[in-house]
Amino acid sequence: MSGRVVPVGALRDFASAAFRAVGVSERDAATAAEVFTTTDAWGVFTHGTKCLAGNLRLLKLGGLRACGVPRIVAEGGAWATVDGDASLGMVTSVFAMKTAIAKARQQGVAYVGVRNSCHFGAAGYYAWLAAQEGMIGLAMANDVPSVAAPGSRGAITGSNPISYAIPAGKYRPMLLDISTATVAGGKVYAARTRGESIPGNWLIGEDGQPTTDPGGYPEKGALQPAAGHKGYGLALLIEALSGILTGAAFTHRVGSWMWDSGAQPTNHGAAFLAIDVNAIMPEEQFLKRMETLIEEIHAAPRAKGVERLYVPGEMEWERYSRAMVEGIPLPEDVVTSLRKAADLALIDFDFAFS
Amino acid sequence: MSGRVVPVGALRDFASAAFRAVGVSERDAATAAEVFTTTDAWGVFTHGTKCLAGNLRLLKLGGLRACGVPRIVAEGGAWATVDGDASLGMVTSVFAMKTAIAKARQQGVAYVGVRNSCHFGAAGYYAWLAAQEGMIGLAMANDVPSVAAPGSRGAITGSNPISYAIPAGKYRPMLLDISTATVAGGKVYAARTRGESIPGNWLIGEDGQPTTDPGGYPEKGALQPAAGHKGYGLALLIEALSGILTGAAFTHRVGSWMWDSGAQPTNHGAAFLAIDVNAIMPEEQFLKRMETLIEEIHAAPRAKGVERLYVPGEMEWERYSRAMVEGIPLPEDVVTSLRKAADLALIDFDFAFS
Repeated sequence: MSGRVVPVGALRDFASAAFRAVGVSERDAATAAEVFTTTDAWGVFTHGTKCLAGNLRLLKLGGLRACGVPRIVAEGGAWATVDGDASLGMVTSVFAMKTAIAKARQQGVAYVGVRNSCHFGAAGYYAWLAAQEGMIGLAMANDVPSVAAPGSRGAITGSNPISYAIPAGKYRPMLLDISTATVAGGKVYAARTRGESIPGNWLIGEDGQPTTDPGGYPEKGALQPAAGHKGYGLALLIEALSGILTGAAFTHRVGSWMWDSGAQPTNHGAAFLAIDVNAIMPEEQFLKRMETLIEEIHAAPRAKGVERLYVPGEMEWERYSRAMVEGIPLPEDVVTSLRKAADLALIDFDFAFS
Repeated sequence: MSGRVVPVGALRDFASAAFRAVGVSERDAATAAEVFTTTDAWGVFTHGTKCLAGNLRLLKLGGLRACGVPRIVAEGGAWATVDGDASLGMVTSVFAMKTAIAKARQQGVAYVGVRNSCHFGAAGYYAWLAAQEGMIGLAMANDVPSVAAPGSRGAITGSNPISYAIPAGKYRPMLLDISTATVAGGKVYAARTRGESIPGNWLIGEDGQPTTDPGGYPEKGALQPAAGHKGYGLALLIEALSGILTGAAFTHRVGSWMWDSGAQPTNHGAAFLAIDVNAIMPEEQFLKRMETLIEEIHAAPRAKGVERLYVPGEMEWERYSRAMVEGIPLPEDVVTSLRKAADLALIDFDFAFS
């Protein structure tokens, strides 16, 4: 069996039911389920409902608080600091981006920093919330160290993702969601599982040297930063905006939502920016310019054998559109993880998929 | 002769005199000279006084207006749009970042977009202006296309630099200034001059395929984006914030300050962000956390043969400190360019270097 195709609504209902079963409110369960399901619809299966079981584990062990309520603990004209109260990272992040959107509506631009959050799934979801309001959105977060600095022997920063979404008129928002490592750790681990070697710029071994052998990961070694000092430098900016300026844990102080005992909050940090396009430039003019940019890229000469030039997010939006009609083709590892989630939540696995 | 060591003040005076000689006001000449000289002091010689001659050429031909006055053409609580009036890119950018700093002082955060600017030298200088005011600063700009998209046969985006500076207490500000291409075009061109081959991830040839032969650059081919779709994606974000949202030229509409006739303004765009640390968190607490971050990186285990782990900007600040005492060791290509600048400005080359 190589996975199965599941209707979007059924997957959302299942995830929501699982969250409710461990004490999350109906509203928060719906919020987190929507984040995960959208992420799966984009085809970003590493960060969608595959993360459900891990979140349920923490909810049951106390590292996440089912009844936690994120709140603004400090604010000014164009900024706020949000304490997530160890509620679900997705719930805190939606609250934070909505706060940024409201502030940007007043001042044109806003930054909202977050502490006491947890792994928030795919950063791109929150950026997209801003784009749905006609704003340019950015979302980023820190995480447990897994990525080396140039010359280090171990991990220094988290994979520290950054994402943006930009309204684009008749096109779907331009949408980028990247980590600052060369590749996701999951790709290294998958190569290890398959017994394959990896490119020389993905990983360092425990001696700090680049290695093509994924055999020691994740126990040993660290991912390499994307483009060397560039990815490392961006990871530290994200650490400053997400971890340092928010009062969250930073670098090795961040708890692991996957590997730790699960009883303690992870205190992840995150940061959200919203820029209200229509405050700054007539919206139609901006959207027309974005459309022109996209159309010119589509029409640009291609290398031999290349069928299309993509703008960021196009692949994800095409999967999304297909998923809304045909359902989401969940890979086998996600299905396995969902079975585990059903066991943790003591709910029926098959009820949503029949 | 392999260049010469020049006192910082003498270099600044020379650059300032050259600008004044072609009609730039004393104040603007001093501003631009300070940007260039600081950049040379950091050892970023590609973006310092080496750019003087090119700016003088445009000032004489009309592509830059010696008496141009950048001004705010639209603004709100936490944002402004600046029209550079085709004055020097350095003058417009300093004005824009100072505007962002003033707005951030009121609202905590501010974005200032710029149009009708020109090549602004090193982005990091403007980010540093914010850090000197206790703020996190970001600066970015678009440029003439020179960088491919994944799969394209030619250039799609500019090298679109992004920089940040973060106050760090007893340490110099953390400072990153990178392009979104794998390497600077100057490195490719230098390899061509020396008849050397280049790594496979630097350049594509005119067929759109990666090449190790720099022989056609810059007439043919394009730089590769840093980390593939990641650098490409960031370049488009920078294009949106610098070019699209500001009303500036974007992608191929941007004029070349080096290759065009020089008679028309280039209409570069740029964007500046300032985040007032002290508005958001007690400044001492933030700085202490930054110091801890830096000290932990310095103390982290290193790969064999690696003497130090650097945080972004440390190499530049060490060169800067040395330059302030010993002078700047200008490479030969910079000296050659300064001779040309002296010819263009009809001023004595050696007066400042005796």
